Amino acid sequence: MTPQQAGAFLTVDLKKIADNWKSLQFQVGDKTQVAAVLKTDAYGLGAVEIAKALYQAGCRSFFTAYSFEAVELRQNLPVGTQIYVLHGVLPQTEPDFLKYDLIPVLSTPRQVFDWNHLGHKENMILPAALHIDTGMTRLGLNEKDVQALCSKVPEYLNVSLVVSHLACADNPENVKSENQLNRFDSLCAKLRQALPRPFKESLSASDGVHLNDPRYYKDLVRPGIALYDGAISLEAKVLQIQEVEAGRTVGYGATYEFTRTSRVATLAIGYGDGYPRSLANKGYVCFNGRKAPVVGRISMDLTTVDVTDFSLQELQRTPMAEIIGAHCPIKEIAKLAGTIDYELLTNLSKRFYRIYMD
Amino acid sequence: MTPQQAGAFLTVDLKKIADNWKSLQFQVGDKTQVAAVLKTDAYGLGAVEIAKALYQAGCRSFFTAYSFEAVELRQNLPVGTQIYVLHGVLPQTEPDFLKYDLIPVLSTPRQVFDWNHLGHKENMILPAALHIDTGMTRLGLNEKDVQALCSKVPEYLNVSLVVSHLACADNPENVKSENQLNRFDSLCAKLRQALPRPFKESLSASDGVHLNDPRYYKDLVRPGIALYDGAISLEAKVLQIQEVEAGRTVGYGATYEFTRTSRVATLAIGYGDGYPRSLANKGYVCFNGRKAPVVGRISMDLTTVDVTDFSLQELQRTPMAEIIGAHCPIKEIAKLAGTIDYELLTNLSKRFYRIYMD
Repeated sequence: MTPQQAGAFLTVDLKKIADNWKSLQFQVGDKTQVAAVLKTDAYGLGAVEIAKALYQAGCRSFFTAYSFEAVELRQNLPVGTQIYVLHGVLPQTEPDFLKYDLIPVLSTPRQVFDWNHLGHKENMILPAALHIDTGMTRLGLNEKDVQALCSKVPEYLNVSLVVSHLACADNPENVKSENQLNRFDSLCAKLRQALPRPFKESLSASDGVHLNDPRYYKDLVRPGIALYDGAISLEAKVLQIQEVEAGRTVGYGATYEFTRTSRVATLAIGYGDGYPRSLANKGYVCFNGRKAPVVGRISMDLTTVDVTDFSLQELQRTPMAEIIGAHCPIKEIAKLAGTIDYELLTNLSKRFYRIYMD
Repeated sequence: MTPQQAGAFLTVDLKKIADNWKSLQFQVGDKTQVAAVLKTDAYGLGAVEIAKALYQAGCRSFFTAYSFEAVELRQNLPVGTQIYVLHGVLPQTEPDFLKYDLIPVLSTPRQVFDWNHLGHKENMILPAALHIDTGMTRLGLNEKDVQALCSKVPEYLNVSLVVSHLACADNPENVKSENQLNRFDSLCAKLRQALPRPFKESLSASDGVHLNDPRYYKDLVRPGIALYDGAISLEAKVLQIQEVEAGRTVGYGATYEFTRTSRVATLAIGYGDGYPRSLANKGYVCFNGRKAPVVGRISMDLTTVDVTDFSLQELQRTPMAEIIGAHCPIKEIAKLAGTIDYELLTNLSKRFYRIYMD
């Protein structure tokens, strides 16, 4: 796709992402390694490009959800990186892990058993991380599972990392984080006694780092969204500008009626591009840093905004509307849409022309 | 991506899509041509595969939003099809139209002028469709624009189709559709007097066809979503099943607390795959046709459901959860998520393994 063919441009500032990573490394200090979570194609932003930029910045550990995402990173990164797969070894994906030197994050007794069994069969010590559940109730070994593992150690695994995930770290007041921390420490202590080799500990993703409490940093932190702060902007082309009389309605369902003679701009973006339909009559875009409200429903490929307060000359000088960026902060747009920046990011379409700034 | 590597499978029943197309053709009768709107990669389902199946069924007219989408169709379809681009000619995309024989749907006086000017310059009569605005206030020539065009006919254009779009056709009671119909007829009459060649008329997309009123059928109807009725299903793998005691919470923000000893299944799908985050504590999936409610927030890559009422044996026999399908109708899931099936479809991720059934 060329810029001419595209309706909208997504700009990813790789330098800003690298700077964000370095700031996190500075915050947590030398004793803690800062990894990068690049699952879901780096939240829809392009995992390969971002991984390369982070490698340049010094990052050596990467996390994906699936093995096919990890394979893509391995094929595009220099040697000497750890690549972890958070969903573990899905049945019959073992060859991905062996061939591409991926580290599965094992979260069930069955996964541990199967991966150890493969090591036995191949007479190899296989790399592994363990996921322990400290209160998220999503993935991970529970206390009983850890106990069982300690009493019968999987001999063919080299467990180099133990991870858990905080459920409520977005709220520093929530006591649950501290409960999870205590449970994590207690389970890690048990594992440390039982396992033959030392391992690193990791408890915090972006929100855990933002708690700004070194007890949560451990040996490795796994930021995802925190890498993208201020690094993303999205602009859409104006396809049509029209004058409409008062009383006219706009869009599906005719949900908005103009109360004065108005000027409407139709933008080349819609919910089919991941611009949330819930922004109908609520969202805004910006021209030259000034807001233009979304009027009417958002269509699959089109969004209409009220630009009555802009002169035609001004609009002609500004052929793109800012959808996300300095004047349309992603967190605020996501909130108006009734969701969070994570979901907004991951829904952003492949249909944008992408610009990666070094 | 292999089935083993994927977390979820999206099944697209091409035969059902072809049958839906044939039913629409039967409904509207021989005098009306049934086109197919395959923009946004056929609502995220795979435009090329679906276009080929519809061509086999007899469809010869296709609509996309962008020229790059149309080019992909042209490269994959036999000769003898019309491919229309709804967004018209974006600046500097003229070569796409000339090289791949695409028909732009022109919606502004400027687009008409530029396209006609190119015809003049190249001394060619260029194919074109006109979009006239009858009350949607989104894209299209208004009454004044049509008047101007009639008094100064663009001589280098062969206008073969005039289209408009209904705003409220999802509600048969809404009088706006009839107003739009009348305006459409009146503007088409003017154009018919002024333009040198005959043209076809098109007013209805899926909802217009569902009005079941032949006055809206005109020469060509443009169904999109109506093609997919009953043709889509989505299943996700179970990554982990765990037992939890009463009082335990699940997921980010600990928004759900179990009131009894429970069994939780963690599924390999999340909002990063387009499964809406708004389904938290509201949505459901099915095993063997029986519902399992979503508990807690939906994560980017994971969803937790309560499977206490299923036996472990039953779950082991059913390793995939139905996310969308016969027992989880897409319209109902979309409604629970606070949106419509269109948005749910277009958000569905590229991360699924896709199965096309012939």
